[in-house]
Amino acid sequence: MLRKILVVGAGKSTSYLLDYFLEKAIEEQLYVIIADLNPAGIPEKFKTHTNFKVVGLDISNTPERQKLVQQIDLVVSMLPAGLHMTVAKDCIQFEKHLVTASYVSDEIKLLDKEAKKKGLIFMNEVGLDPGIDHMSALQIINKIKAKGGKMLLFESFTGGLVAPECDNNLWNYKFTWNPRNVVIAGQGGTAKFIQEGTYKYIPYHKLFRRTEFVDIDGFGKFEVYANRDSLKYREAYGLTDILTLYRGTMRRVGFSKAWNMFVQLGMTDDSYTIEDSEGMSNREFTNLFLPYSPTDSVELKLRYYLKIDQDDIMWDKLQELNLFDNKRIIKLKNATPAQILQNILEESWSLADDDKDMIVMYHKFGYELNGVKKQIDASMVVIGEDRSHTAMSKTVGLPVAVTSLLILNKKITTPGVQIPLSSNVYDPVLAELEHYGITFKETEVPYLGYNPDSVAS
Amino acid sequence: MLRKILVVGAGKSTSYLLDYFLEKAIEEQLYVIIADLNPAGIPEKFKTHTNFKVVGLDISNTPERQKLVQQIDLVVSMLPAGLHMTVAKDCIQFEKHLVTASYVSDEIKLLDKEAKKKGLIFMNEVGLDPGIDHMSALQIINKIKAKGGKMLLFESFTGGLVAPECDNNLWNYKFTWNPRNVVIAGQGGTAKFIQEGTYKYIPYHKLFRRTEFVDIDGFGKFEVYANRDSLKYREAYGLTDILTLYRGTMRRVGFSKAWNMFVQLGMTDDSYTIEDSEGMSNREFTNLFLPYSPTDSVELKLRYYLKIDQDDIMWDKLQELNLFDNKRIIKLKNATPAQILQNILEESWSLADDDKDMIVMYHKFGYELNGVKKQIDASMVVIGEDRSHTAMSKTVGLPVAVTSLLILNKKITTPGVQIPLSSNVYDPVLAELEHYGITFKETEVPYLGYNPDSVAS
Repeated sequence: MLRKILVVGAGKSTSYLLDYFLEKAIEEQLYVIIADLNPAGIPEKFKTHTNFKVVGLDISNTPERQKLVQQIDLVVSMLPAGLHMTVAKDCIQFEKHLVTASYVSDEIKLLDKEAKKKGLIFMNEVGLDPGIDHMSALQIINKIKAKGGKMLLFESFTGGLVAPECDNNLWNYKFTWNPRNVVIAGQGGTAKFIQEGTYKYIPYHKLFRRTEFVDIDGFGKFEVYANRDSLKYREAYGLTDILTLYRGTMRRVGFSKAWNMFVQLGMTDDSYTIEDSEGMSNREFTNLFLPYSPTDSVELKLRYYLKIDQDDIMWDKLQELNLFDNKRIIKLKNATPAQILQNILEESWSLADDDKDMIVMYHKFGYELNGVKKQIDASMVVIGEDRSHTAMSKTVGLPVAVTSLLILNKKITTPGVQIPLSSNVYDPVLAELEHYGITFKETEVPYLGYNPDSVAS
Repeated sequence: MLRKILVVGAGKSTSYLLDYFLEKAIEEQLYVIIADLNPAGIPEKFKTHTNFKVVGLDISNTPERQKLVQQIDLVVSMLPAGLHMTVAKDCIQFEKHLVTASYVSDEIKLLDKEAKKKGLIFMNEVGLDPGIDHMSALQIINKIKAKGGKMLLFESFTGGLVAPECDNNLWNYKFTWNPRNVVIAGQGGTAKFIQEGTYKYIPYHKLFRRTEFVDIDGFGKFEVYANRDSLKYREAYGLTDILTLYRGTMRRVGFSKAWNMFVQLGMTDDSYTIEDSEGMSNREFTNLFLPYSPTDSVELKLRYYLKIDQDDIMWDKLQELNLFDNKRIIKLKNATPAQILQNILEESWSLADDDKDMIVMYHKFGYELNGVKKQIDASMVVIGEDRSHTAMSKTVGLPVAVTSLLILNKKITTPGVQIPLSSNVYDPVLAELEHYGITFKETEVPYLGYNPDSVAS
């Protein structure tokens, strides 16, 4: 008897997810309906496979959507986060399981009671970040606790970057996911974390100047800037009394210092629109953030304003993006600075067809066991294959697919709205991911505590 | 026949306002009801005067409030801005005029039609800033236009400061008005203005580093940081096509550079509350914004973070505020950084009983007349008498009182919700203010355009 899955939203992140179902389709007796607004974009191999069906679906078309939901056992929603709720309600109505890679919303949490009553599993945050970060961290934290260890420190960093062999710009960065999230990263609130028992706060305009450094064996040095709320999962991870708790985003060293130039100028601002942005040159855009001068050049004004020497690599980084070009014209109408900056960056930072991306994740676990302070570091590096088979889509999509199959196979059975924090979930998911090269390298290192020598401030 | 005025809210800013009514009471046949939540604070001279009546009033007590409104001809509302609407509705209902020193709210604007229908004058923004700034600027702008001049540039700056003879701290600043507004000044939006036909935008974290300088004859040098929206009155002032339009706040030179340290640290943030702020020392508060270190002092971390030499005056400015004191304890519970900073500053920056404050206002008017570019600068300086008769209360309260009397005397007659932009209002108000030492000094200067030499960036 076929087990039926509905995948709604088959965008960028679904190549590995669908390939996993394809690989398992026969042995696991899967039947997968792929529903997307643009079914033309779905690869041929699914359209011709007897265990797959590709359909066009506008998610707001309730009769069509519900007709699909009624036919299946489990829904995988890869829609934008704001659209999950529509599908989640269908899942309650027609009693289907639901799996997403998105942050569990307050709205969806309200469905918990009903989901439990009907024995439905609504698994969220089971992608990369959130997802693999939860699972890999909890596995080690709970192992330490099981031995009787007391957690002292947990730091966790993730980054989506370009693979070293395709890293050919001065920023050592290309967009591998939603560029908008990169441009507005860190906005909307002061970063908050704990270091050695003391709360610490970093305002947005200092965020990219308070980085930590991390080395990954074989991949060199990275830097980390703090996420907005490092304390978000403090209770959920069982780390209520931990002395140091810090979560961050990884970049290649030097990125943050350069990015800070945009922050300082005000180019990442998304809170107002520029008058007459359409038709403005990159140079005019840059000049909006600099004082007027009848004589001085935009270049000199910027260097003086940001205190950059002309032979500083920071200067070359700006030049590389054509920020002073008066021939390149902005096509966006009444756009915010952030939208315009994104457009300018996309010209330089988009992945080429043969570019590979790279996902890096790094955890530090400090703990005390029998009076001795110890530390485990765990790191993961995944390199993509090409622009459509990215490390990002692999690390987001595979855990979703694996979790879905585990639910259908009744290996994951606890009902309710949840995230993957229980060993019943993370142990089998991580074990399966290992077969696909998503592995963590664990090393015991001397306990350093929060080490200020690795911090640039 | 007595003309009756109701003054609601007799706080800080009403000393001169009430004194003006007192001075005019007999000759102008005024009867003034002073209604305040704390009538005990009203000086004896009003309580014993036959033309005055002092009453206790909780503004939310509608029967009591309306009983007062029904007795009088005109209401002066010196209540906090958010409370004007309550009184404004009474004024519509009982057909009374209304005068306030506050920005006209969208809510009050909606009463315009009814006010006009009933022949009522609802005059707002008739204090200092807004108020005297509008009136003094429009008088000169309209004079220039009447001669056939075309406006090229308008810059307008106002500051509430401490008088030179009482200026005895390193910041050359004391609180002379609502301290909270000083601490959160510039927040909530990017500063926007026009320089020589180009829009310019300054993000909050750069606002205090893009100051202009201004000299006032006999009072020395001041600096100006940009207001949030310099373009707000562009249309209302009839300056639609003007090339340079900039409004700002005046401080003594060096204040902004030092204030920027608080901005950079994140101490002016009002968007989140500090965990366990109550009982924290000033030193611990400062340390919240600095990286953890097991060895380095708060002092050294701050100097390094902000790149201040130990012999820099900026450092002395911080020391003067006792920011590193571990004996001074914060008494606010779950307070925002801005609230805590305000508390710390109030310990150092409150006016002493015999301290005098100072109001400075400076306008620059650039224009072209018969093909020649010209400029008029106009400046006003008002020094307070003591802590209760401040220059601030004089410049806010007197124009309100003067306008009220002009309305009662039918010298101002146009009905509707308005601000003082018409010569029928500003000419008589400014003429009367001159008798009280509120005067502008006009000088013709060479047209400089927007002069980058007077700008620090």
